[in-house]
Amino acid sequence: MPAPLLAARAHRIQPFHVMALLARARELEAAGRGIVHMEIGEPDFPTAEPVVAAGQRALADGHTGYLPAAGLPALREAIARHYADRYGLDVDPQRILVTPGASGALVVALALAADPGRNVLLPDPGYPCNRNFVELVDALPRAVAVGPDDDYQLTPALAETAMDETTAALVVGSPGNPTGTLATAESLQGLAALAAHHRATLIVDEIYHGLQYGREPAQALAHAPEAIVVNSFSKYFGMTGWRLGWMVVPEAWATPAEKLLQNLFISASAPAQYAALACFGEAAQEIFEARREAFRQRRDFLLPALRALGFRIPGEPAGAFYLYADVSGLTDDSFAFAGDLLERSGVAATPGLDFERTAPQRHLRFAYTTSLPQLEQGVERLAAHLASG
Amino acid sequence: MPAPLLAARAHRIQPFHVMALLARARELEAAGRGIVHMEIGEPDFPTAEPVVAAGQRALADGHTGYLPAAGLPALREAIARHYADRYGLDVDPQRILVTPGASGALVVALALAADPGRNVLLPDPGYPCNRNFVELVDALPRAVAVGPDDDYQLTPALAETAMDETTAALVVGSPGNPTGTLATAESLQGLAALAAHHRATLIVDEIYHGLQYGREPAQALAHAPEAIVVNSFSKYFGMTGWRLGWMVVPEAWATPAEKLLQNLFISASAPAQYAALACFGEAAQEIFEARREAFRQRRDFLLPALRALGFRIPGEPAGAFYLYADVSGLTDDSFAFAGDLLERSGVAATPGLDFERTAPQRHLRFAYTTSLPQLEQGVERLAAHLASG
Repeated sequence: MPAPLLAARAHRIQPFHVMALLARARELEAAGRGIVHMEIGEPDFPTAEPVVAAGQRALADGHTGYLPAAGLPALREAIARHYADRYGLDVDPQRILVTPGASGALVVALALAADPGRNVLLPDPGYPCNRNFVELVDALPRAVAVGPDDDYQLTPALAETAMDETTAALVVGSPGNPTGTLATAESLQGLAALAAHHRATLIVDEIYHGLQYGREPAQALAHAPEAIVVNSFSKYFGMTGWRLGWMVVPEAWATPAEKLLQNLFISASAPAQYAALACFGEAAQEIFEARREAFRQRRDFLLPALRALGFRIPGEPAGAFYLYADVSGLTDDSFAFAGDLLERSGVAATPGLDFERTAPQRHLRFAYTTSLPQLEQGVERLAAHLASG
Repeated sequence: MPAPLLAARAHRIQPFHVMALLARARELEAAGRGIVHMEIGEPDFPTAEPVVAAGQRALADGHTGYLPAAGLPALREAIARHYADRYGLDVDPQRILVTPGASGALVVALALAADPGRNVLLPDPGYPCNRNFVELVDALPRAVAVGPDDDYQLTPALAETAMDETTAALVVGSPGNPTGTLATAESLQGLAALAAHHRATLIVDEIYHGLQYGREPAQALAHAPEAIVVNSFSKYFGMTGWRLGWMVVPEAWATPAEKLLQNLFISASAPAQYAALACFGEAAQEIFEARREAFRQRRDFLLPALRALGFRIPGEPAGAFYLYADVSGLTDDSFAFAGDLLERSGVAATPGLDFERTAPQRHLRFAYTTSLPQLEQGVERLAAHLASG
């Protein structure tokens, strides 16, 4: 009996190639090898104690039922206060919707913005799931090559060349994954103007906001007030596995966004929402800032160390926890290089294949989501690996 | 400046009309009125203590990070054992994927099954979100009227008439919402054969499995082994707000389904997955069975009581916690009737408008998700309401 037909989008959606590498790393570890993990896009810190305690209290208090589709009112208000306190911005809580991770927010954002057959501009390299959110709604991902000249960010000039009358949306990330670079205020203003001109939607992924070292990233809501801004409790707030994020939408889209959330997800996790309230308390904020300082120290160690080994990392990766290295001076195939690096030297890093179509073979992403001693060992192993190559 | 263009699907997706009713009920309560809630599709029991305790332990143990996209291996195995223990079925854990609620499973199921422009058969009345999952991926919901003659279930005969060469999928629920009726084994076999003939996908929503009173519902995996079966920890297992469900897919679809889950959701909630392990323990099972008995008692009270008042409830609503009443002997507008019932008599019930296109004005859904004393009071109020009408 023939199997049911799989929809075409299921063939177009790519798995993460790093998963095979990660599985192999686990195999090697199970066989007793010590692996330095620089491939993982998740902070190595557990959820902060005050947030865990708030989650436990929420469970003890029986907060285990559905919540309103747009989120717990107290959490929407706490997020609004966060925009006021941190960015000096007045954001109506009605424009803030709590989502099952930033993933849920991106599904809703693209479902609101992109009709089938319209195109969506995505900087290349970029977050690999973005093109698949676009595929989900049968719009057309349009990769726009970005590089060191523009600090790996989509600029208005690049966007203008790539846009046409069928462009539905532009998705940018700042700080960006895999490069850790920041969009400038001028860029966000220019992209917002272009989007408005085409009646397209600017979607700004700010899930790494808070994790910046030196320069502050521009806040999109200040420079692109009609943008959809996506954020998350995963990275700075350290709640990855709880699956909680939020989106800020233009006032006119709050009702359609709520309608989609209601239908697609019913509501985001209740224990997670109650726990997240503690993220804005003083005790948690101190922990988050201490962790940010740890990330800064790691970046300050790893960036020059990799450069000294011949990894070319142009520009200033000023946020998130990634360094995106041009390895063309060391190999002409970053995928094979990553495999060999893991097998022979026990260092895991993510090849460019997951992040870009332009020159995947030239790039490798290093994440500093492991301790400084581990990173030091990783660098030693890299040096030995290159010397023995 | 003109706002960005909203995608067409955002206009087609309907909000839940009951939300306005629910908001009004809350207003009346805030003003001091006592409302009998028979509109809510959520068990009134909190999550069972052993499951809460497991969730708290998971948090204490630091299980707050991402899990594999397909779910915690121990939970997939526990679900497989559940199919063995409860249904005598051997299901490979590789075919079981843990999802963010049954909602997440239905998004993935429709994304796998339905290309844009193909149609998806949905029994009418049915679960209101189903047509919107179809809209998300720009396929065409095709409502098939079902009624008392078929116990409100989609039969092979009805499906055959409605199917054509562009049918991508059929979505049925057993026990069904809003009717609480069960699909028969013969029906599931017939639907599976029709689906296979058209290379379409049969999707069976079993989220109310376990909540049945008298007859056991047929298990789709026994009669339609190529179906996608969706289930949830929300209803029988009492974990609504945690947002956790699962899907069982044909072997060939396990990899595509995992790929979609990975991209769309990263993973389902980690604390929820660890907590859910306790759902299969003896202590929790005893609580679930006691709650099932409470639901049975409520149904056994409410069904004859409503019938005695002139609400026509044909067939045997043998599961879930809903009674779907034909109110055409009492009103020619169930929506106005529900509004009046709430305002004058303080009883909330859901009009048919949220569930069907065929004859919404004839129907009202009563949920027995409140205590027996509350239901008794509700019936008294209904009697007085009708007498004073």
